[in-house]
Amino acid sequence: MKTATIIGLGLIGGSLGLSLKDKKLCDCVMGIEHSEKSARRAMELGLVDGITTLDEALDKSDLIVLATPVDTIPTLAVKILNRIRRDQILMDMGSTKQELCELTAMHPNRGRLVATHPMWGTEHSGPEAAQHDAFKGRTVVICDREQSDADALQAIEQLYSAIGMPIKYMSAEEQDLHCAYISHISHITSFALALTVLEKEREEEHIFDLAAGGFESTVRLAKSLPQTWAPIFLENKYNVLDVLREHIHQLQILRRMIEKDDRQGLVEAMQRANKIREILK
Amino acid sequence: MKTATIIGLGLIGGSLGLSLKDKKLCDCVMGIEHSEKSARRAMELGLVDGITTLDEALDKSDLIVLATPVDTIPTLAVKILNRIRRDQILMDMGSTKQELCELTAMHPNRGRLVATHPMWGTEHSGPEAAQHDAFKGRTVVICDREQSDADALQAIEQLYSAIGMPIKYMSAEEQDLHCAYISHISHITSFALALTVLEKEREEEHIFDLAAGGFESTVRLAKSLPQTWAPIFLENKYNVLDVLREHIHQLQILRRMIEKDDRQGLVEAMQRANKIREILK
Repeated sequence: MKTATIIGLGLIGGSLGLSLKDKKLCDCVMGIEHSEKSARRAMELGLVDGITTLDEALDKSDLIVLATPVDTIPTLAVKILNRIRRDQILMDMGSTKQELCELTAMHPNRGRLVATHPMWGTEHSGPEAAQHDAFKGRTVVICDREQSDADALQAIEQLYSAIGMPIKYMSAEEQDLHCAYISHISHITSFALALTVLEKEREEEHIFDLAAGGFESTVRLAKSLPQTWAPIFLENKYNVLDVLREHIHQLQILRRMIEKDDRQGLVEAMQRANKIREILK
Repeated sequence: MKTATIIGLGLIGGSLGLSLKDKKLCDCVMGIEHSEKSARRAMELGLVDGITTLDEALDKSDLIVLATPVDTIPTLAVKILNRIRRDQILMDMGSTKQELCELTAMHPNRGRLVATHPMWGTEHSGPEAAQHDAFKGRTVVICDREQSDADALQAIEQLYSAIGMPIKYMSAEEQDLHCAYISHISHITSFALALTVLEKEREEEHIFDLAAGGFESTVRLAKSLPQTWAPIFLENKYNVLDVLREHIHQLQILRRMIEKDDRQGLVEAMQRANKIREILK
């Protein structure tokens, strides 16, 4: 691949730029960034080799990558597919897929799109948050692979393999459902936990002094960028609401056990929860 | 201090044994452990110099430390205070304090007790979970210090300072309230999150493959020992229920915003949650 252009040079797009450059997967990695300040920082940090425009990318890039907030990806994808050539590939890195796959389903150039979700992120954002080797060892989900042209799919599979990511195939529906459980709900509970503590603990000094490691790890995701996560929750609304309902239900069961001094019930519920140990080991 | 005896050689008691030995704060560190297997492991791991009995500890130890599950601490403390000498000190390391301080309030030997809560722990348990330098840099809370004799208080302050812990003073009421927010609620949400995911994600393969760093950190505490945490939640019942109510309320607010596609509301709520970043930095 000669030239790739990444649209959106934040945590995800910036880290991909570093991976492509570090592994020498492209001769030239360009970036498109609507914030001038972020574009400048991305250049200073060496995330990309240059800043370009969509017109130029459509003219010269072999690969165009969408790494913008998820609510902007579907319409951007359609607009790019409208103008893409048969020798070019479009890839997205968004956290939700159903809207994207629905909007592009009947597009005559749908085959040039490969819909991907690399399962990596941190609570930090912007070009400064980009990391070398960010994706290494993490799973990447490729959605609705049968909708992508064989050559485009193969090129993207090679790209992710080269940066060290095992590949998992799913439908867009499956991916959005599982991500609601595995990723989106963790962020919601973390935000809610931060709000709970901030609401009650007006004397910040106590949080600061007492916060042990447990609190820091459960609340870490509450530092995440609202402009990234609000669109994810809304794009994946029905799955997220379903999980949230179940989560509140589980909290209410634990609450009732505490109210009734049901020690045995609490121990048994926590023993069931302990099974997560075997799964995550 | 010549001899210390630690009752309960799990994560907390075992780590204290290592700290006392590493820093040479006692000539001899003994342990009492009701599980024979744990006693043997504690000896093999070098957490203590020997295993003893309560009678012998009351005869020979300068310091007796309670590091057993919180629901056993208050009555054990009373029984030990009944027999303690004026040259001996009793200290506890439990996560809740009101019951302990209430039960010992009028005891003629109350002054020999120093009620402490070192703010450290992990999701692991038993002698194997003990760590060198575990407490270093973490805050320790000393409760109702005015109830302890000056010499006992000073000795314990010196002990914690020597193992690198800044000291914070609080009433038992304050400590239990703050710990409900900072520590206990994190565990409850983590257990509930694990149960939510395990309930819905029957195909464990997906959890295993997709679980990104965010999920692992929010769910880490769900690996904790039920026999440790059930007593903590019940001992601190009213504070825990109060926080849990607020947390469910915050989740419901976020849920309603997602239902109504209230993007602006979501962004603003998450921006408020982001303030946790400044507090924890």
